[in-house]
Amino acid sequence: MLVQNKHITTIWYENETDKVKIIDQRLIPFKLKIIELNTLDQVCFAIKEMQVRGAPLIGVTAAFGMYIAAKENSNLDYLNKASDKINATRPTAVNLSWALNKIKTNIVDVNKDKIPYTILKLANKIRQEDINNCKSIGEHGYKLIKHIYEKNSKPVNILTHCNAGWLATVDWGTALAPVFVAHKNNVPVHVWVDETRPRNQGFSLTSWELLNENIPNTLIVDNVGGHLMQQKKVDICITGTDRTASNGDVCNKIGTYLKALAAYDNEIPFYVSAPISSIDFNISNGIKDIPIEQRDGEEVSHIEGLDENNNLTRVKIVPNGSTCTNYAFDVTPAKYITKLITEKGIIDANSSSINKIKN
Amino acid sequence: MLVQNKHITTIWYENETDKVKIIDQRLIPFKLKIIELNTLDQVCFAIKEMQVRGAPLIGVTAAFGMYIAAKENSNLDYLNKASDKINATRPTAVNLSWALNKIKTNIVDVNKDKIPYTILKLANKIRQEDINNCKSIGEHGYKLIKHIYEKNSKPVNILTHCNAGWLATVDWGTALAPVFVAHKNNVPVHVWVDETRPRNQGFSLTSWELLNENIPNTLIVDNVGGHLMQQKKVDICITGTDRTASNGDVCNKIGTYLKALAAYDNEIPFYVSAPISSIDFNISNGIKDIPIEQRDGEEVSHIEGLDENNNLTRVKIVPNGSTCTNYAFDVTPAKYITKLITEKGIIDANSSSINKIKN
Repeated sequence: MLVQNKHITTIWYENETDKVKIIDQRLIPFKLKIIELNTLDQVCFAIKEMQVRGAPLIGVTAAFGMYIAAKENSNLDYLNKASDKINATRPTAVNLSWALNKIKTNIVDVNKDKIPYTILKLANKIRQEDINNCKSIGEHGYKLIKHIYEKNSKPVNILTHCNAGWLATVDWGTALAPVFVAHKNNVPVHVWVDETRPRNQGFSLTSWELLNENIPNTLIVDNVGGHLMQQKKVDICITGTDRTASNGDVCNKIGTYLKALAAYDNEIPFYVSAPISSIDFNISNGIKDIPIEQRDGEEVSHIEGLDENNNLTRVKIVPNGSTCTNYAFDVTPAKYITKLITEKGIIDANSSSINKIKN
Repeated sequence: MLVQNKHITTIWYENETDKVKIIDQRLIPFKLKIIELNTLDQVCFAIKEMQVRGAPLIGVTAAFGMYIAAKENSNLDYLNKASDKINATRPTAVNLSWALNKIKTNIVDVNKDKIPYTILKLANKIRQEDINNCKSIGEHGYKLIKHIYEKNSKPVNILTHCNAGWLATVDWGTALAPVFVAHKNNVPVHVWVDETRPRNQGFSLTSWELLNENIPNTLIVDNVGGHLMQQKKVDICITGTDRTASNGDVCNKIGTYLKALAAYDNEIPFYVSAPISSIDFNISNGIKDIPIEQRDGEEVSHIEGLDENNNLTRVKIVPNGSTCTNYAFDVTPAKYITKLITEKGIIDANSSSINKIKN
């Protein structure tokens, strides 16, 4: 997608320099900084500290991470340990282990000398597939938006939570892909952007993406969505997913569940853009079985922004002596999800439909 | 309640100096600053800019505001205009007009010279009644907490939204009054404190109150409550109300509705502490008829806190060119409210029960 009218992706391999490059997303929307990933430690830091984030993107980064590890040492032992290390950076999204397993399965019988190149080819393939899958999700989801527009003949109001735009993937995004496709097809849309505390990815990433693509959007705090739905100011909700259970339960950024409840209460369709890589076919009950990451309480007690001199400043917003708890995800039961938008089409959020798209 | 082990209230009349004094709540939790209200303009500013906030407290402040206005000019014409001016500061809470009407009704036949003193006596009475009512709400609500404790024999987990503690009233609070009474009676409690964006009254006011009273509490962002309820980490929700419709719909700080939906979905009792002064007997449908205040978008786009040098600093957390919308309240339909805790007892959130406590 566009940043100041130039097309950019979140991660790429630069042939001439043999370097993997990423956007350091911690500085967006205030600064666009491109950095290199040169060591396994840098890869783990990038995922853990959220220089890259979003389930699909951390999967792709893990794949390139294995290439970087293989350049350090292409022994299978070392690579298995590297894979474990990358996999341990973040527990909730299944894309990490999905990408790592893909790599590991494909290098078992490969000559040691050829392992780095084999992994690189595979990482590039996973990256390109992510782009293609997001584009397909965009096209399937676009039909839903177009249908609402044809019915109402006025801009379609879409509510999204967190950032599942192109910054959460390589390009296009998942939840926002239908929005980008609609905009490119001149179907008028307006996006309600949830702040998404504690890390504010809605305000800092989603709004920045939409502003750069010139898509109308309004920023709201996380508390507002229910009121907007009650007042019929939302036509459709679309979010992403970090892990989709095989029964259709969706684990996504904390607060998604609350919006799904409000959508259900107000009979507003609630869609989840779920690439097949996000589906965990081994888990049949999202609420019981998906591990929920708990992050540092300082993400709750402190916020970063620009002070009056435009310096990036971190402020503490709680009294001394406070205790903060920071759950990063929650699970929305399948019964509150209208449908899943996958790269293979729009399907019901239940076991039989999900199992049909397995291969 | 206590601040650094000294008892304090949010507003009081000082006999010796003939002054009305308040806490400037905009500086809490970082500073305790007491200021005087000396003019009608200062009263309007205090309510509008939220030096005082919370439905019961702005009602009491309005009453003292009329005394201050009457000292400026005790003509009925002037006082009617003063009342209109105060009433226009904030549209949602009904306590403002409730207190102003009480004052106006009682001065119609009073000799002009005696009007200031009559209003002062009435304002002091309204203030004292607020304290008594909150204390009663606390005692009624305490029984609910005690009952849960007797059943589970472990600390009772209470989730609250925004600040409906003593800072929202004169003393004791509404939603937190049962918590304070439980704590004084040695029933162990733990409070989940919602941040309550955009103005963060949970983090800045509720947590500060609880810390000063030594009541265990944990701060969470607004997105977390649903997950906690799903994981059975909440035993009871208690919130305040800014206006209660006669059918039991509750208009309270934005985001309350989302928590009520989650409580309903997880079969957790959701109580609202509703002093009778918060009930609007003229409104029979909260969703349709209660005016929802929209405040400045800068409350959404900017946050204030302490920088690393402990200076109070305001930072901007959105990209340039963003549009922010700021709805201050939402309405929770009566069907999601387990009961209302009033000073006259715990009642059903429906017309017949509400009408019974009218007088």
